[in-house]
Amino acid sequence: MPQFYEDVTVGNVETYGEYAVSREEVLRFAEQYDPQWFHVDPERAEHESPYGGVIASGWHTAAMTMRMLVDGHLAEAATVGAKGVDDLRWRVPVRPGDTLRIENEVLEKVPERPERGLIRARTRTFNQDDEEVFSMIGNVMYLRRDPDPVAADDESDDQE
Amino acid sequence: MPQFYEDVTVGNVETYGEYAVSREEVLRFAEQYDPQWFHVDPERAEHESPYGGVIASGWHTAAMTMRMLVDGHLAEAATVGAKGVDDLRWRVPVRPGDTLRIENEVLEKVPERPERGLIRARTRTFNQDDEEVFSMIGNVMYLRRDPDPVAADDESDDQE
Repeated sequence: MPQFYEDVTVGNVETYGEYAVSREEVLRFAEQYDPQWFHVDPERAEHESPYGGVIASGWHTAAMTMRMLVDGHLAEAATVGAKGVDDLRWRVPVRPGDTLRIENEVLEKVPERPERGLIRARTRTFNQDDEEVFSMIGNVMYLRRDPDPVAADDESDDQE
Repeated sequence: MPQFYEDVTVGNVETYGEYAVSREEVLRFAEQYDPQWFHVDPERAEHESPYGGVIASGWHTAAMTMRMLVDGHLAEAATVGAKGVDDLRWRVPVRPGDTLRIENEVLEKVPERPERGLIRARTRTFNQDDEEVFSMIGNVMYLRRDPDPVAADDESDDQE
């Protein structure tokens, strides 16, 4: 059974992953979407970067985090996408050879509409040394199992 | 000459792009990083999705936006990465066949450290119909051409 808006509990914390970060994937993602030298040029990064070697694009870290969220949770959830993300932070560089995992905490439920509601959740990504490398607060639209006619019908800031 | 912190002007607006969104790339990105059915299953998306067909993963839209930022601007800038992003919003679905462009506006300069400063900039992504599909406020670390010994030395919330 998919997880609907009614099934989500504020305060619930779950952990998902892992995701092994390969050098080949770090370079491939960055070459396509973020070809800055400290992501795509191992030689120069080793000698000139403050990070001492190539690091993953921050958008790659976000994408790997999303994959863990989908596999661990969203594939079973009755969502129709997300409105956006707040307070996205890259805290520690992600490097080839790292192994990532995530922790997801439900912060708030917003009734929003008769047929669906918004779940605000904080996702934190950790590496194999338990360093928090990334975090964000997502705003995901969940369908209701049973429409709620009294939920506010707020059309603002909406993909549809 | 690379663009340093001192070279950035608050209020400056520039436009970059374009980026042609192919169906093959939409499916490939989503299969790897965001395999939710409304991104990877064209048949089901056409019949069941509120969007009437597959739409790009929001993280793919962010990644394509980043590529336009790098090609248009960041490749020439003396940056060492970003701390994070605020107010990231997916406003209108991005679909196969769309052509994207971006508008980047410098909002604020924060002195932060003797050797570098933070540039806050709003990036907005538009499709071929001039709909704003995506927006975010980035916090990017720019090196200074000349170190400023009086700049606050704020080590908080930092990748290094």
